[in-house]
Amino acid sequence: MKKRIALDMDEVIADVLPKFLDIYERELGVRLKREDYWGTHKLYRTSKEVAFIRDFLFDKGFFADLPVMEDSQEVVRELQEHYDIFITTAAMEFKFSLEDKYDWLKRHFPFIHWKNFVFLGDKSILRADYMIDDNVSNLRTFQGKGLLYTAYHNTAEEAYTRVNNWKEIRAFFKQERMKDED
Amino acid sequence: MKKRIALDMDEVIADVLPKFLDIYERELGVRLKREDYWGTHKLYRTSKEVAFIRDFLFDKGFFADLPVMEDSQEVVRELQEHYDIFITTAAMEFKFSLEDKYDWLKRHFPFIHWKNFVFLGDKSILRADYMIDDNVSNLRTFQGKGLLYTAYHNTAEEAYTRVNNWKEIRAFFKQERMKDED
Repeated sequence: MKKRIALDMDEVIADVLPKFLDIYERELGVRLKREDYWGTHKLYRTSKEVAFIRDFLFDKGFFADLPVMEDSQEVVRELQEHYDIFITTAAMEFKFSLEDKYDWLKRHFPFIHWKNFVFLGDKSILRADYMIDDNVSNLRTFQGKGLLYTAYHNTAEEAYTRVNNWKEIRAFFKQERMKDED
Repeated sequence: MKKRIALDMDEVIADVLPKFLDIYERELGVRLKREDYWGTHKLYRTSKEVAFIRDFLFDKGFFADLPVMEDSQEVVRELQEHYDIFITTAAMEFKFSLEDKYDWLKRHFPFIHWKNFVFLGDKSILRADYMIDDNVSNLRTFQGKGLLYTAYHNTAEEAYTRVNNWKEIRAFFKQERMKDED
């Protein structure tokens, strides 16, 4: 049986930040750059702004047109030859994200079967061999091997194997398979 | 930490059969009874009819107004005092079931947090202590203790602890807790 990878969506295969930057500019009149967010966690000037911008996550369509993370389609397709890939995404806080995420996956990752989609809230219920996620709290409760995908909010974290992009994910799993063969 | 129960929706807390009987009557002009289905698996006279009726599962709204299984709300609420209850439902084949199921849960089981909703395809990715499900194939890949909720399509199955209604589920878990205390 193939080993299993639980693969997150937002900020791992779907790039959320550009959308936030667009909304920020449209609503607050300031064009921020990706670097303003990165590692500083200070995109917003006040907590009221944080809440205001975050509310857009509840809108129908927010998750429908996010860009695909570079190289993710190609590498996921390669990994499928060796692993069962499950898309495991925290969707339950935002009701309208359910159909948006479903359509997004069908459009950008048509080679992943719907049987392997998991939309949930608390990822501690998952059983898999690997988890790729940008959220430390998801990795903390995971019993397999966790990979932390670098995002602005986790740059200080040191407890997990870090991957900065999909080329590094490809290299990581190549090494894992070499170890398994030994 | 509380033990976890992975709880199915359709034919366990949501009663699907009445809807099928209504559609059957509306579309094919024959009013069947619950007993015609039960244990015989011969509701449909031809495979063409099976496919025709099954297509309604893809409609928006099909899962929105299913009746609640008798006693399930009361017993689930009681079980929450002792267990973490996760709603684990195979929703991915039917895109429009996602929002319907979400709304149904919010309406009929408002005491279950959205963090504990899991909409998926293949339940073998779940990690929990107990699973209550009417589908034998889900129990087969489950590593915890599986309870088979009686439905027309599983009456011949003998490999799992069977529960026929929610009163029996209440009694089963009461016994489990007594064993745990010994």
